[in-house]
Amino acid sequence: MISSLPKRIHHIDVVVHDLDRAVERYRKVLGVDPSPRESLPGRGIDLARFRIGETWLILVQPTQPESPVMRFLEDHGEGFFHMAIEVDDVESSSRNLRAQGVRLCNDTPRIGVEGWRLVDVEMDETFGAMVQLVEVGED
Amino acid sequence: MISSLPKRIHHIDVVVHDLDRAVERYRKVLGVDPSPRESLPGRGIDLARFRIGETWLILVQPTQPESPVMRFLEDHGEGFFHMAIEVDDVESSSRNLRAQGVRLCNDTPRIGVEGWRLVDVEMDETFGAMVQLVEVGED
Repeated sequence: MISSLPKRIHHIDVVVHDLDRAVERYRKVLGVDPSPRESLPGRGIDLARFRIGETWLILVQPTQPESPVMRFLEDHGEGFFHMAIEVDDVESSSRNLRAQGVRLCNDTPRIGVEGWRLVDVEMDETFGAMVQLVEVGED
Repeated sequence: MISSLPKRIHHIDVVVHDLDRAVERYRKVLGVDPSPRESLPGRGIDLARFRIGETWLILVQPTQPESPVMRFLEDHGEGFFHMAIEVDDVESSSRNLRAQGVRLCNDTPRIGVEGWRLVDVEMDETFGAMVQLVEVGED
């Protein structure tokens, strides 16, 4: 059944300067082993994931100057980057938001790791806490 | 069974200047109705909660000058405040972290809404993204 209700906090991204150091610290704090390090060259990031319940906690290190994540890190410092909320149909949910006047960063979903289909809500729509919609297959 | 593994992202707090405005916006973006507004005078906050999957997304407005949340808002602006990770036994988990050299903000759990028992990890232990341990009953 296709529902327009959000299903879960699918992932939370934390942006850091040094992925290896952050992974070691989070492994200690969480008591959970991370996934192997991954790269998304098109986005200019390396990342590692920790699974907590139904949510991925993802540490992200930007690797390319002038990329959106590098600019976020330079402007805001290390810390929370965004939370991604899973929906059944990201295009349909995006259309609904636009129809209500909510501004989005991209019209066509970006593709993340494992083919996740991502649409970003403009940061000032959600009072500084960036929200992303994500449609995923099984994981 | 008592497990030392984290069970879920129990809640994510977002700190805002104006709770009523933020609640209206998040209601639109999430397509979910919030809980009634609540107050925690001892902590100096008002809050409203949205349920997403197994996680509470909580909007928090500080109401008292000099309180920790007000200082965070003044220093960092609106946005993500912390994520709380559910554990079975917050005292046991805190002892384990301390034994590994992870610094915590409080030795005795603070009490949140609905009797949640909370211990905060020092912010610089987790690269700017504040992590909290929480032990809860049923919810």
